[in-house]
Amino acid sequence: MRSLLLVTAAALLIGAAPAQKLLTPNDIVAKSPASAWRTIPADDLVVMDLASGGRVVIQLAPAFAPVHVANIKALARGNYWNGATVYRVQDNYVAQWGLNESDKPWPQGVTPKPPAEYTRALKGLQITRLGSPDPYAPGAGFVDGWPVAYSPRAGWADLAHCYGSVGVGRDLSPDTGTGGELYAVIGQAPRQLDRNIALVGRVIDGIDRLSSLPRGTGDLGFYKDKAQYVPIARIRLASDMPAAERPSYQYLDTASPTFVRYLRVRANRHDSFYIRPAGGVDLCNVQVPVRKMP
Amino acid sequence: MRSLLLVTAAALLIGAAPAQKLLTPNDIVAKSPASAWRTIPADDLVVMDLASGGRVVIQLAPAFAPVHVANIKALARGNYWNGATVYRVQDNYVAQWGLNESDKPWPQGVTPKPPAEYTRALKGLQITRLGSPDPYAPGAGFVDGWPVAYSPRAGWADLAHCYGSVGVGRDLSPDTGTGGELYAVIGQAPRQLDRNIALVGRVIDGIDRLSSLPRGTGDLGFYKDKAQYVPIARIRLASDMPAAERPSYQYLDTASPTFVRYLRVRANRHDSFYIRPAGGVDLCNVQVPVRKMP
Repeated sequence: MRSLLLVTAAALLIGAAPAQKLLTPNDIVAKSPASAWRTIPADDLVVMDLASGGRVVIQLAPAFAPVHVANIKALARGNYWNGATVYRVQDNYVAQWGLNESDKPWPQGVTPKPPAEYTRALKGLQITRLGSPDPYAPGAGFVDGWPVAYSPRAGWADLAHCYGSVGVGRDLSPDTGTGGELYAVIGQAPRQLDRNIALVGRVIDGIDRLSSLPRGTGDLGFYKDKAQYVPIARIRLASDMPAAERPSYQYLDTASPTFVRYLRVRANRHDSFYIRPAGGVDLCNVQVPVRKMP
Repeated sequence: MRSLLLVTAAALLIGAAPAQKLLTPNDIVAKSPASAWRTIPADDLVVMDLASGGRVVIQLAPAFAPVHVANIKALARGNYWNGATVYRVQDNYVAQWGLNESDKPWPQGVTPKPPAEYTRALKGLQITRLGSPDPYAPGAGFVDGWPVAYSPRAGWADLAHCYGSVGVGRDLSPDTGTGGELYAVIGQAPRQLDRNIALVGRVIDGIDRLSSLPRGTGDLGFYKDKAQYVPIARIRLASDMPAAERPSYQYLDTASPTFVRYLRVRANRHDSFYIRPAGGVDLCNVQVPVRKMP
């Protein structure tokens, strides 16, 4: 009995589906029709291979930070990141990579001082509303697969800093960062950074390669000793890889009825483990489902 | 110029204080009077030493889950966890430890079937209100150093699942778990577990020892191979350690004017890096300051 307890207790913590019960979020994803999925263009996928063999895949968000995203594509194509490392890992905050303290010239096509793409116009966006209050903005929801905060009155929308979000390190305003140094969120959503920094995408595969790295013991999680830097073998766009090697992913269309159902169950877990459904959910606790191309 | 950019960009991400600027949350903590701090009783500190040498310290919350907390003390005093390991690490969710699949008898003083201490009476609690909406409960704030959600109408309060929170693995209701298997949150706050499971405390030192462990590759983050289990040398109450070796910690009194100021700045970052203060903050993004006894 004890051995059952321990394994199933763990299993139920994330709501694996027992027989004859109400649906879990995973059940809804598993039963989704093919029409509910959207394929991510290969040109919007950044593939970062660590020298140790692990792979981290990032989906770019050109609709939210077009100039910064164009920079990142130019940096990848111009081999700017040759010799790059992960040089900072701060617990419950970010992992950061790039060349650190480098004077390498920018490759062709890089805009050295991009505009402050911290928000974009709300107008024209089709939003699936979260349906729960958000502490950081008047509105919150999902646009084309992305978690978004917005203000109907002020007319802006922004990408939200959630687990796995990828942003651009910058100095003080009006500098917005060029894109050479990037960070990924590996802890509780630091939403205070929303509207203060350019987010360019999110890790859709391999975030655990970054989140399980040793924490830096220097100030702000920097590795004190360069010997601790985690070498990155290469950073490429999937579209520049040979077709046979190219990874391909889909995300659940956040405008689809399937996603709306998924969202509702995320806010009201009623499968066997849950005695009291919350009746609400945090924007960053609704991970938009992503899968490898089936 | 570039080398400056990269280091300071990182530094500013968490708001290190530049000269002549408005206060950061860390500044407020640094300037706090001694009277704003409360010492954690040694009997409420669980000290878990990993065999690798790292230490994880947990503060227990007897005011919220008294029977489960009493069990954990009895388990520690009865050496129940001899041979325990961390056997599950699921990315963006939990690290879990204990004996896993064991039939070891409970030590003296353990209540094998504790009541469902998922909430407690709101009455009698002095709450410092968060001042921002919470997606999971009608109210949110801080009680005696703990992040708490509550319902004035229904009269309950509960500990919130935040980064570092420690809870008790359980099977299906009415089982509430005995306390032999514990988990700590290592990702985005899984608040859907609030009011569905007994939280018994939080990691106040060394959470990075758990959050940086390799992720398990089995279902739900279980280590597939027992050789991957992370051995725990011992788990003791600080009060059972020799006085000279006993660690001691303080937390910032959440009813103090200092904490109220800290909370306000957390919701309205206006130091140099921040162009647009959020005007709100998530309950789990207000880490209650804890320090080693000065």
